[in-house]
Amino acid sequence: MEVRVNAAMSADGKLSTVRREQVAISGSADFDRVDAMRAEADAVMVGIGTVLADDPRLTVKDRTRIDARADRGVSDQPARVVADSRARTPLEATVLDERAPTYVLVSETAPEENVQALDSAGATIVEAGDDRVDLVAALGHLENEDIASVLVEGGGELLFSLFEASLVDELSVYVGDVVIGGRDAPTLVDGEGFVDGFPALSHESVERLDSGVVLSWSVSGRDRSPRRR
Amino acid sequence: MEVRVNAAMSADGKLSTVRREQVAISGSADFDRVDAMRAEADAVMVGIGTVLADDPRLTVKDRTRIDARADRGVSDQPARVVADSRARTPLEATVLDERAPTYVLVSETAPEENVQALDSAGATIVEAGDDRVDLVAALGHLENEDIASVLVEGGGELLFSLFEASLVDELSVYVGDVVIGGRDAPTLVDGEGFVDGFPALSHESVERLDSGVVLSWSVSGRDRSPRRR
Repeated sequence: MEVRVNAAMSADGKLSTVRREQVAISGSADFDRVDAMRAEADAVMVGIGTVLADDPRLTVKDRTRIDARADRGVSDQPARVVADSRARTPLEATVLDERAPTYVLVSETAPEENVQALDSAGATIVEAGDDRVDLVAALGHLENEDIASVLVEGGGELLFSLFEASLVDELSVYVGDVVIGGRDAPTLVDGEGFVDGFPALSHESVERLDSGVVLSWSVSGRDRSPRRR
Repeated sequence: MEVRVNAAMSADGKLSTVRREQVAISGSADFDRVDAMRAEADAVMVGIGTVLADDPRLTVKDRTRIDARADRGVSDQPARVVADSRARTPLEATVLDERAPTYVLVSETAPEENVQALDSAGATIVEAGDDRVDLVAALGHLENEDIASVLVEGGGELLFSLFEASLVDELSVYVGDVVIGGRDAPTLVDGEGFVDGFPALSHESVERLDSGVVLSWSVSGRDRSPRRR
């Protein structure tokens, strides 16, 4: 499974404000770049926090790219995947609309009632992990469903879990020309944080886009010894 | 007063781990870049959190740059400034050594005993603000002491206060090839965070350095209307 992570952050590493309100960090050229990345992926994935805060659609917008997918013999739209340990995805979430198939990854602690309702709403439920989604197992399951590449668009809790499980292959970040600030504002990688065995990156490229910069890295593993001074 | 901010952060915007332990984010080329920035400044400033966590020296290391300062008719070393509302700077802090003059900015709530001890230890005390340091007044005081330019090296609480007071003119950030993560890890700009009137940046340059990237912006103010989507 090829896992690419892409997100837009402020110059100080924030994805949104302390109120979890979105800020227009990037612009139309970056939206188009993201659309192209989605079109290349078999699935587009987010965490439940992103669904609750932003209610994203996660589909490819550009008609030419949709047609190109058809020419490649794949579905018009990549699948959508929500990492949602407790099955909190609202039944009215846009991610459950008819535009693309949707997988909801849940853990064994997810209330059966919620799981049933999501199943009835058309989502494919993947259960893996006791308390939280076991991402290695869940992505393994998706791979068995012919999903060989996933574009992950956040948020910071999911990204931490993916980095912790050494599942990330590539990271690209749009850094915008704005400061958001806030010790409690969501950042690119949240979770418990690393104190050792930090994920090490290899710089691939830097590109000016809109009024910001896109930084791209490949992930070279977590095996490197601690990087403390 | 010209205020430049410079710091090194991980790819996800962190200055250190959740334990406030430093991580070697940048390398020798970036240390040299920072040394050059210090040599150009009349003062180098940090917040008390940085003093307590890292005990930095904040001096210019390169002998040629020190000599060049003498040729310009200024002191060998830039002054050091600690924003320290409650006068918590330890008397054994490196920033109080003999290498350079040091200003400690305190508020009226700072315990008189601490203030006296810092004064006896050779620091110049600048009192401004009731509960927290009034940075506009304090920097105004420094300007009266012929400090016309300050390089601010962090941390995130001080940087938020400076951006909030519209005091920052330039921001440069070394983005390293490592992920630190952690919803409670210190970030480039912490504090309460902005929910409106976000500081707007103008991109100046991007430069590869060591195994990372240096992004530089000028700050174009906080007057721009909210940037929400």
